Amino acid sequence: MNSRSVTAFAPATVANVGCGFDIMGFAVKGIGDKVTITLRDDKDTSIIRMSGCYGNMIPTERNKNTAGVAIDAYLKATGRTDLMLDIFLEKNLPLGSGLGSSASSAAAAIFALNNLLGNPLTTTELIPFAMEGERIACGSAHADNVAPSLLGGFVLIRSYQPLDIIRVKCPDELCCTIIHPHIQLKTSDARRILKRDIPINDAIRQSANAAAFMTGMINEDFDLMGRSICDLLAEPKRTQLIPGFEKTRQTALDNGAIGCGISGSGPSVFALCKGELISGLVAEAMKKTFYEAGLNSDTFVSRLNAPGASILQTN
Amino acid sequence: MNSRSVTAFAPATVANVGCGFDIMGFAVKGIGDKVTITLRDDKDTSIIRMSGCYGNMIPTERNKNTAGVAIDAYLKATGRTDLMLDIFLEKNLPLGSGLGSSASSAAAAIFALNNLLGNPLTTTELIPFAMEGERIACGSAHADNVAPSLLGGFVLIRSYQPLDIIRVKCPDELCCTIIHPHIQLKTSDARRILKRDIPINDAIRQSANAAAFMTGMINEDFDLMGRSICDLLAEPKRTQLIPGFEKTRQTALDNGAIGCGISGSGPSVFALCKGELISGLVAEAMKKTFYEAGLNSDTFVSRLNAPGASILQTN
Repeated sequence: MNSRSVTAFAPATVANVGCGFDIMGFAVKGIGDKVTITLRDDKDTSIIRMSGCYGNMIPTERNKNTAGVAIDAYLKATGRTDLMLDIFLEKNLPLGSGLGSSASSAAAAIFALNNLLGNPLTTTELIPFAMEGERIACGSAHADNVAPSLLGGFVLIRSYQPLDIIRVKCPDELCCTIIHPHIQLKTSDARRILKRDIPINDAIRQSANAAAFMTGMINEDFDLMGRSICDLLAEPKRTQLIPGFEKTRQTALDNGAIGCGISGSGPSVFALCKGELISGLVAEAMKKTFYEAGLNSDTFVSRLNAPGASILQTN
Repeated sequence: MNSRSVTAFAPATVANVGCGFDIMGFAVKGIGDKVTITLRDDKDTSIIRMSGCYGNMIPTERNKNTAGVAIDAYLKATGRTDLMLDIFLEKNLPLGSGLGSSASSAAAAIFALNNLLGNPLTTTELIPFAMEGERIACGSAHADNVAPSLLGGFVLIRSYQPLDIIRVKCPDELCCTIIHPHIQLKTSDARRILKRDIPINDAIRQSANAAAFMTGMINEDFDLMGRSICDLLAEPKRTQLIPGFEKTRQTALDNGAIGCGISGSGPSVFALCKGELISGLVAEAMKKTFYEAGLNSDTFVSRLNAPGASILQTN
């Protein structure tokens, strides 16, 4: 058997970021999924091999798995469906966590495959294929997790048709505390409770906060960023799904966080902070508050200018 | 009779700016209203004296005139209702033009009064009083004209409760062509045709464009600004009120404008351009297109970092 293989890592991500429902997201440093793709000359595999803490909790069939669907979308679009591949997914991110778990798998898979084929596409050009993975995972081909997972840092999605993704530099000091309470929320369920129509005044306020947040971030105005982290579209409906959320948010703010909101569709919660020291203190305080609400949790601290997908190994 | 007087000028403004419906506005250089306030010791005046091209088209009663209402709001809030004032308004801006005509009068009046009293309030603190003038003029105490008219430059209104106004620096090269076709639209009518509820997807796209526009402006990315000038809340309804609008917008873009939209609630149209030369060419081309649609028009060219209200004379 002749074989070549590439292993890629793609980070967890925080989407929505309060005022940026469906349009903003950023990469988290150090946690994410890994995918190894092996080009074979003997047989194709329709079953994805798994490892990692959560490897036994997702479909192994290639056409039902986000990594497999992303890969097949790429192969189809580039006319390479003849390739015989073995896919191995190290599933480290919890499902239904609001940490962009499905996006991480899809991003790692597509990044590895593109590298294996000599990088014919740019990283930005990979985004639509990873979005197809999201479609199978949660019913909506959104980009606010896959784009930051691939590109790293903070991204703004201006438009889907055509896809218009802007990578924005964050202040160096800007950190994020992320806390994952041990309950599971399905993104599809969290989307189902959203209203289809909203009052025009809420739309105006949402646009004002999104515009002000970007202004604050680019101008390094932390106070403005904090005032702008407010979601009128999804968060009012979703807070009910996360026990102790309001109290935890208040705890984050009381301990020095700039702002706080639901990460993706939850239950994870993010808090933006100035510097790692404050971010660490906020993490401890939030963990305690969730514990008092009856939930154990994991916490992570990350700078916002975190790297995106990367190649770990080639053979 | 003992008397002291102050004359102030406040510029015309472009509100909404495409993607910033009800939240963005900027000052226009060189055109605006003037107000002279005279502090008297003999008698108060409930009638506002008028001059200027449009002085005979608005109420002269102090409690029905935007300048008078703004002044009385200020006097009431600061406990100075004992002051006897004479108000003289040089009304240079056309009514129902989309150029912030009522805001200009209110801003000039309140700026003159504050100066007359030794500037006890900052310019930002004057905004709520000028907003009261807007309430009487068009039924809504909005700030997207009065704030830039007072402060100058480009402003973003993040919130009304509490009032949170952010002044944003524009690229030095950024210019605006403004064209005022000779029809009149009442702001209150242009507001009445708006939908009260909108699809959540339109709200998401509106917030994305507003966030991207600010990103483009601060990062001096003219192309991104142009892609972001798109209003989903008001413009789709309001284009029908301005004959030849779509053709005029296309003309502006064909002649090098970055982006184009309705100024305020119309009928004036703005086009952002890179530099005064292009802005001038765009003005000529737009004027021709409106003429072909049966409308005469006036055009103006202004840099975006235009000054706000200023004192012209004190006696």
